[in-house]
Amino acid sequence: MSNANPHSTSNYPELESYPRVLLGPGPSMVHPRVLRAMAAPLVGHLDPYFIELMDRTQELLRYVFETENGLTIPISGTGSAAMEASVANMVEPGDSVLVCINGYFGLRMQNMMERYGAIVEAIQRPWGEVFTPSEVKQALYKRPAKVVAIVHAETSTGAKQPLDEISQVVHDQGGLLIVDAVTSLGGMPVRVDEIGIDVCYSASQKCLSVPPGLGPITFGPRAVEALKKRKTAVANWYLDMTLVQKYWGPERTYHHTAPITSNYALYEGLRLIAEEGLDNRWARHRENAQLLWAGLEDLGLTLHVPEEHRLVSLTAVCIPEGVEDLKVRKRLLQEYNIEIAGGLGEFKGKVWRIGLMGFSSRKENVVLLLGALERILK
Amino acid sequence: MSNANPHSTSNYPELESYPRVLLGPGPSMVHPRVLRAMAAPLVGHLDPYFIELMDRTQELLRYVFETENGLTIPISGTGSAAMEASVANMVEPGDSVLVCINGYFGLRMQNMMERYGAIVEAIQRPWGEVFTPSEVKQALYKRPAKVVAIVHAETSTGAKQPLDEISQVVHDQGGLLIVDAVTSLGGMPVRVDEIGIDVCYSASQKCLSVPPGLGPITFGPRAVEALKKRKTAVANWYLDMTLVQKYWGPERTYHHTAPITSNYALYEGLRLIAEEGLDNRWARHRENAQLLWAGLEDLGLTLHVPEEHRLVSLTAVCIPEGVEDLKVRKRLLQEYNIEIAGGLGEFKGKVWRIGLMGFSSRKENVVLLLGALERILK
Repeated sequence: MSNANPHSTSNYPELESYPRVLLGPGPSMVHPRVLRAMAAPLVGHLDPYFIELMDRTQELLRYVFETENGLTIPISGTGSAAMEASVANMVEPGDSVLVCINGYFGLRMQNMMERYGAIVEAIQRPWGEVFTPSEVKQALYKRPAKVVAIVHAETSTGAKQPLDEISQVVHDQGGLLIVDAVTSLGGMPVRVDEIGIDVCYSASQKCLSVPPGLGPITFGPRAVEALKKRKTAVANWYLDMTLVQKYWGPERTYHHTAPITSNYALYEGLRLIAEEGLDNRWARHRENAQLLWAGLEDLGLTLHVPEEHRLVSLTAVCIPEGVEDLKVRKRLLQEYNIEIAGGLGEFKGKVWRIGLMGFSSRKENVVLLLGALERILK
Repeated sequence: MSNANPHSTSNYPELESYPRVLLGPGPSMVHPRVLRAMAAPLVGHLDPYFIELMDRTQELLRYVFETENGLTIPISGTGSAAMEASVANMVEPGDSVLVCINGYFGLRMQNMMERYGAIVEAIQRPWGEVFTPSEVKQALYKRPAKVVAIVHAETSTGAKQPLDEISQVVHDQGGLLIVDAVTSLGGMPVRVDEIGIDVCYSASQKCLSVPPGLGPITFGPRAVEALKKRKTAVANWYLDMTLVQKYWGPERTYHHTAPITSNYALYEGLRLIAEEGLDNRWARHRENAQLLWAGLEDLGLTLHVPEEHRLVSLTAVCIPEGVEDLKVRKRLLQEYNIEIAGGLGEFKGKVWRIGLMGFSSRKENVVLLLGALERILK
């Protein structure tokens, strides 16, 4: 390719702005105040102002994680990078781990664990169901594990995993509990300290309602201790918390250049959460989910997960017999500017996934979606 | 921490906007059009419009890398993540590699190589100097290597590494050449295809002048072949190109949620480059660098790297005897809103690093910096 300019600008038109109503599993819609924050000119990643902002962001992250954990930061990557950070830092080659799999993201966790040399035992539940404490207990009785990984909010199924007793079971056996809160943090209680979760991670683009690109994560005292006691270096340089924490901690040692603008967005998104208050935010997510569920059932649709274990942030709806998955989603997008998602993995073609997360969780969005679905499905 | 709202908004003030003149090693300043692009509402990561945008972004990246390589994408992390992607994908445990170290980022590469199980041989040059083809040849003669890694533009020293003959040497011996172009891409020719670089990576926040958070990378035919022939899975899930390429390629298989807004910014930044044209852009970087060099020498300052091997994007200036590094930088920031950087590693306290990258590379910034420095140093 010549280095003369062969690119008439007309090949590369200006960015379009589609007014999408984002009701999939993320990214969720972004509040105008957050969008404005992203248009701010940058400061450097070691600028005294940015360092101040890092401290405030960490405090606000502790608020949403409901934790006092010092090591609470946004990973400079998406939720999957945060998942990998939990694995890379807690697992050494040869470690025994237990992964609980009841959906796509449990499978992903298992895959990552194997890449880091863990000896993985997995227990399975059908997609959409959740684990009982005794299932975990039994598995740990058969083979103890240094780390147990479980998904709080399965984005692929819409199931919500109760964690209190499982945390007890894991700790009684001396293990560390890693929890995936990608689709719950900011939309429902995660209660890191109360439950005793050792490593909990999430993503910016779900209920925190900030553009994708950051993966908030928190490490509790037992996890920090395990990190200190590692015999081998963390196999992943970019996600090595022994290095990353020196940038976010008092040393401020350069590791990688923090994504300044993404952190501006996160700060503004977290400010919106603090202003609303977690309790109010959770209630809003619940109310709009209930409105959605009632409306979907009125349309004769079946929700995949029983209400008891249903996420308020993500609902899996069974696609009715004879209805074409893609055709419906295409019409929603083209005619109404609404995005919902299809199923992942074994749920492909079987369910739609409707997200009501963060700024997307609004009554007007629910009513619009129900009206559009009614017209398309009739 | 209670989940009631203990956070009066006053603890978390609105974002400030400091009019920083960013003349450090990155982030560079961001063009207002790019900032505006970041304020655009989001579409989903599988939205037909986003997929169109991904294709156009890949084409534009090929233009700046001067390559026809199909596998040319932005990694969803910073330049260091792109460095790690090059290592993780090209190296398998037990592979012999040669790392050329003449600065901080060569050392980082060595560290990463070791984490991925490579048997690392390193050759060294004093910081600020560059390698000759015969040094590389000799090292490969002593011990052949599957991969040779070298830094084109050492951000820690301001040295520019000639690559044509070294590429020849590496390929004659059957090796793969990884090149770090973090501080050169978009500011000077990188000529991936002409030189025959197998893997070349960069970062969004240097001469591309887009906020940090993406790491453009390109894999040539030999590198793609090596990726296909791997005997082991890539040890890093997030950066596994065998998976990532399925999202950026025709399959569009979900891997991780692309950072939508960062990609908007990259697209707009690349459009600005296509409009200016690479030749013009390189000339602008050169002219402003020469203006800076002449001005610094007029102030009696010594440039660390001889002109022949000096980067136009980053200049290392020796801190004069008796001048306090931090004090000068603090005054530049506080009195003039100018950011320059100190030295990294063994250059700490010894040099200042002045970047003129992308939108920061403007005559007015050079004149301002020289004026401010003159007043502070006199």
